[in-house]
Amino acid sequence: MEMETVETPVAIVDLPTVRRNARRVADYALQHGIGWRPHVKTHKSLGIARIQLESGARGLTVATPREAEVMSAICDDLLLAHPPVGTARIQRVLALPASVDLTVALDDGGALDTFAAAAEAADRRVGVLLEVDMGMRRVGVDDLDVLVELAGRCASLSHLDYRGILFYPGHIRDPGPAGEADFQELRRRLARTLEVLHGAGLPPRVVSGGSTPLLYRSHELEGLTEMRPGTIIYNDREALAAGVARPEDLAYTILATVVSAPSPGRVVVDAGSKALSREEFRGPGGGYGALVSPSGVLVGRLSEEHGILDLAGLDWAPEVGDRIRIIPNHVCVSVNLQDHIVVLDGDRVERWPVEGRGRLPWTPGEGDL
Amino acid sequence: MEMETVETPVAIVDLPTVRRNARRVADYALQHGIGWRPHVKTHKSLGIARIQLESGARGLTVATPREAEVMSAICDDLLLAHPPVGTARIQRVLALPASVDLTVALDDGGALDTFAAAAEAADRRVGVLLEVDMGMRRVGVDDLDVLVELAGRCASLSHLDYRGILFYPGHIRDPGPAGEADFQELRRRLARTLEVLHGAGLPPRVVSGGSTPLLYRSHELEGLTEMRPGTIIYNDREALAAGVARPEDLAYTILATVVSAPSPGRVVVDAGSKALSREEFRGPGGGYGALVSPSGVLVGRLSEEHGILDLAGLDWAPEVGDRIRIIPNHVCVSVNLQDHIVVLDGDRVERWPVEGRGRLPWTPGEGDL
Repeated sequence: MEMETVETPVAIVDLPTVRRNARRVADYALQHGIGWRPHVKTHKSLGIARIQLESGARGLTVATPREAEVMSAICDDLLLAHPPVGTARIQRVLALPASVDLTVALDDGGALDTFAAAAEAADRRVGVLLEVDMGMRRVGVDDLDVLVELAGRCASLSHLDYRGILFYPGHIRDPGPAGEADFQELRRRLARTLEVLHGAGLPPRVVSGGSTPLLYRSHELEGLTEMRPGTIIYNDREALAAGVARPEDLAYTILATVVSAPSPGRVVVDAGSKALSREEFRGPGGGYGALVSPSGVLVGRLSEEHGILDLAGLDWAPEVGDRIRIIPNHVCVSVNLQDHIVVLDGDRVERWPVEGRGRLPWTPGEGDL
Repeated sequence: MEMETVETPVAIVDLPTVRRNARRVADYALQHGIGWRPHVKTHKSLGIARIQLESGARGLTVATPREAEVMSAICDDLLLAHPPVGTARIQRVLALPASVDLTVALDDGGALDTFAAAAEAADRRVGVLLEVDMGMRRVGVDDLDVLVELAGRCASLSHLDYRGILFYPGHIRDPGPAGEADFQELRRRLARTLEVLHGAGLPPRVVSGGSTPLLYRSHELEGLTEMRPGTIIYNDREALAAGVARPEDLAYTILATVVSAPSPGRVVVDAGSKALSREEFRGPGGGYGALVSPSGVLVGRLSEEHGILDLAGLDWAPEVGDRIRIIPNHVCVSVNLQDHIVVLDGDRVERWPVEGRGRLPWTPGEGDL
């Protein structure tokens, strides 16, 4: 396969950068004695997950049954960080290979009972982390009395193994001064949560947290035993803005072709919302993606299959047929639009499937390219 | 297959509504002597395209090579409404079955020459529509002298068949009073464009336009020979807001399950930006989707696999395990996230593939469920 003839729009992944990103996180985790359980929702690829495991990940985090099925082919320690609710989903999760040590996250008493009954019927013992809200106001218990009650209930159910707590501080996007007050509040909430659980005789063995922006502050969260960053393996404009990645850490870009330049200052590429996703950048400049080169040029408008570059005030004027590379704002949702990635490793150019994309049950070998 | 056990989040398509939507457009097109060439980017499904063709569509519009490959299995009259630029894409388009009467849209002289040379090398004659900008400022020529030059060039190239012009008035979202000035400007621009082409001895045989919002005003565009609405087959919140669809015309919804209700007023479902897409509603209320029932409830926040309902000021409080149906803001980008749809037809419940999703080459039978 030759880069020159690769059809666009397409996701390009630089494997040496992926390996370097994995090693940096692994080194940090090792240095601080924190387990690294990367969230595979970012890449959804067996090949990338293998690199994470070889670099020292202690297990993997998944969000969907399909991601769990795919990753069970190479990893026997999976955390499903999304509540298993609903008969079909529960059955599917419990049907994972018996070799998998499965942990699920829950935050509801009724859901806990239903899941426990299904686990008993399937004769499968499953670990449970109780999800705690640390300020994001998404899933997660925020009343510590309720948490203690849930933990006690969980510990008493025969096929559930109460392992501890899980949280996702996704509301803190800036690990620097702008997020400092929220970070200190997170530290206080976590300390209080652990104190209450210890006091109730239900100490958590696992305290699972960590997002990409807060990744390198994980050691400041006392009691944290593992972290689950996703984005850091590829990085994106948000990771750059948060300061956790440098331009040379960007492993994933969208290669696009200029398909129209019908009047001065108007340049249209073939990467639109069906390649990049429409998540407007919340930082300076806005836009739907940034060009690798020339640096600072933004995708200013998006249609489904068109990206319109914002060239106001620039001398640069690409021509129809030229190719550009775009840094997505949020890599996880761009990956979710791809059925394959084109992987570069030195001189090697290969197509890899994105096995975890979609919702249908996965069978090994399916989608191999 | 039973609806009760369908795993969520999942796209549900009501087939009788699809058939009714198709018939209404077909009736309008017939009444006004305008050809109906639906854009399949909305549904990307062979099964839905079959209904459109059986209802009287004169051919199909596609945006990507894969959509063209899929639709070539059931239709021999395809319009690729996206510029075929780039060696790989051109080769793939020219490799469509010889039985397909293919038309492509272009707006650039260099791209026209390149495509003509490739068509000659492939010994394939291809129809061309020249894309004209009518105010959207995306692709499309806006200088009529340039248009005449392109049309003359196209007419002179041996393997290209100059057929006429194409435009997409996507900047007009409201067919009512709010969009009236823009609509009248569109009428004037179109009239002037046709006058100039006729004056140059290059009269277009095909004048292809029409979006879902302006669908039922197509007959007011003098000289229009065909229209390419996509959304109208399924409809969405935008189509409701534009007044071209009524609630009973909504054929596509996302079925979701409440997975968490951790504190009063906070209810989280399993449909997030990877099921709905993150396109904020530009009309009243905003949000990322609206519940079918209770009517008026919105998805107020989205994560990748979580939707957080906006329940402020409501009495309604669903419980963990309850199911809801969500009307997406923009159905085309939600469909693009699905590898399958669940189709309802009276008592029948079936899984259909979304064959046109993705970018890899398609082979017949692939993805059958």
